[in-house]
Amino acid sequence: MARKPAPGPRDERGVLAARILTAAREQFAQHGWAGTTMRAVARTADVDPALVYHYFVSKERLLDAATDPPQRWLRSVAETWTTPVDELGAALLRLMLGAWRDDEIGPVLRAVLLTAAHEESTRDKLRRVVESSLIGVSQLGVNDEDRLRRSGLISSQIMGLAMMRFVWKIDPVASMSEDDLIAAVAPNLQRYVDGELT
Amino acid sequence: MARKPAPGPRDERGVLAARILTAAREQFAQHGWAGTTMRAVARTADVDPALVYHYFVSKERLLDAATDPPQRWLRSVAETWTTPVDELGAALLRLMLGAWRDDEIGPVLRAVLLTAAHEESTRDKLRRVVESSLIGVSQLGVNDEDRLRRSGLISSQIMGLAMMRFVWKIDPVASMSEDDLIAAVAPNLQRYVDGELT
Repeated sequence: MARKPAPGPRDERGVLAARILTAAREQFAQHGWAGTTMRAVARTADVDPALVYHYFVSKERLLDAATDPPQRWLRSVAETWTTPVDELGAALLRLMLGAWRDDEIGPVLRAVLLTAAHEESTRDKLRRVVESSLIGVSQLGVNDEDRLRRSGLISSQIMGLAMMRFVWKIDPVASMSEDDLIAAVAPNLQRYVDGELT
Repeated sequence: MARKPAPGPRDERGVLAARILTAAREQFAQHGWAGTTMRAVARTADVDPALVYHYFVSKERLLDAATDPPQRWLRSVAETWTTPVDELGAALLRLMLGAWRDDEIGPVLRAVLLTAAHEESTRDKLRRVVESSLIGVSQLGVNDEDRLRRSGLISSQIMGLAMMRFVWKIDPVASMSEDDLIAAVAPNLQRYVDGELT
């Protein structure tokens, strides 16, 4: 018989909720918004479907919880922005590559990118993540308009690289070493940071 | 009563097939692979579901037909690659911006990008489109490895820009004028074309 933990004592709640969120990220990333069901998430997490509803109420709220960026990620983003401006291109690229390698942050980023195209609320979240992490805290540019443009262009290159390397897995970008990738791409990011754009 | 054209005379076949493909692109782009049904495509195209099966057999084959790049697009890609090498960065960017504006090509590109994340066969097709249009015909680099890297990096920037501007619609990249975008991005593409990458 399948093991189906019932809603357990209080200290078990965090463990089960985390297990459900891990399963949800996996399902959303693999099957998209429309292809994911609460039942499949429960099965992947090895819990009773009723527990998924009990903790997360609806598929919308489950997606919302599953795609919330960890505090640790927001802190490392904020830290990266303290890098001296002439090394920022490489630092932002290293931040992204490290995030995708991270056991906790990588699956969240993947779930966000893979549901954003079809789910308006995740698109809003992607927008907010981009704005707060890549745009909001940046000190770039001579004025607000310039700052937003530079940050948006940086995001376009970083996101495109993430799609090619981690989501669509198109070679040779998918298989290049991180060192080669940084050598090739960081100077382009650096131009968006402090180069002439007009 | 709803108008439901039956399989008509031979010269009607092309018209109905085109209408089904248009509806399929719209559905796949909006709801993704898992969220699209043959029935919804038939409803959008205003035809009988049996006709969709009759012409396209299965959802897999419908997606395949709906995401085939038009010959006209492949020709304009090949033509772009004849641009003098020092203007290629801007030319490739103009090609992409024009393609998204095109009534026929734009919806195909959108359907490819929006289903590639969750459908292995579309991911293969995206790979082939990237390889044949952006990589295969290019004359870049000093050897094959260098050529493939340069083309892959160009694709990463162009695809990232397309996602930000047309799919996720994140400002200011989504709303910048084409001229501003070309001024900001073309020099970065040009570096991937003929700059020092190591």
